[in-house]
Amino acid sequence: MNKTDFRSCCPLSSSLELIGDKWSLLIIRDLLMGKNTYSDFLSSPENIASNVLITRLKTLKEYGIIDVRKDKDRKNIKYYSLTEMGKGLLPVMAELALWYEKHIYAEPEPLSQHLTNIIKNS
Amino acid sequence: MNKTDFRSCCPLSSSLELIGDKWSLLIIRDLLMGKNTYSDFLSSPENIASNVLITRLKTLKEYGIIDVRKDKDRKNIKYYSLTEMGKGLLPVMAELALWYEKHIYAEPEPLSQHLTNIIKNS
Repeated sequence: MNKTDFRSCCPLSSSLELIGDKWSLLIIRDLLMGKNTYSDFLSSPENIASNVLITRLKTLKEYGIIDVRKDKDRKNIKYYSLTEMGKGLLPVMAELALWYEKHIYAEPEPLSQHLTNIIKNS
Repeated sequence: MNKTDFRSCCPLSSSLELIGDKWSLLIIRDLLMGKNTYSDFLSSPENIASNVLITRLKTLKEYGIIDVRKDKDRKNIKYYSLTEMGKGLLPVMAELALWYEKHIYAEPEPLSQHLTNIIKNS
């Protein structure tokens, strides 16, 4: 990624160009929770459309946020994982969940706390 | 906002339904930096399209993230401001900027630091 590829020199704006949509961070959430195949992501409760999922997996790979590998035995299945850059989005996700819990609905088992614990233990 | 309005019960997913796009957080950044009119937002370097700006201002108001008022003397101009819920997005923006600075390009004058200072002093 080159700095001149972005619409402005604002870091916030550039981050949003990469993952500012309704789906990218959900795929990263799923990876974090142990899901790692195309079928896994499709089965999440938000019902991502297959064409959206294919596009997002491709761009997240291009940006260096996720990695993909094929299994030796099951060559038709791709396995996805988070790169260090992808794991670096955990604090963003924790703050987004915390914002919801503070201002919209206080969850009995806060996701923000769960994500914060993962950050602390990593 | 009712909890059942969202596509799932995941707080992260619900936050993304409200502000998961390439523009909403930029309007909030602009408000934070002292911009407060439609023309101000249009003049930002990312060149937001006027129809996108109008839609985003409307939905951010509906969600309770921004407020709007008219001036007594200049009644044709609307002045926008952040609500407490809107200000609550600062840590999300700071983490997004920090992620860019860590993983893509280290800025000489980090925006994440500037946003973190605002949070500390508020």
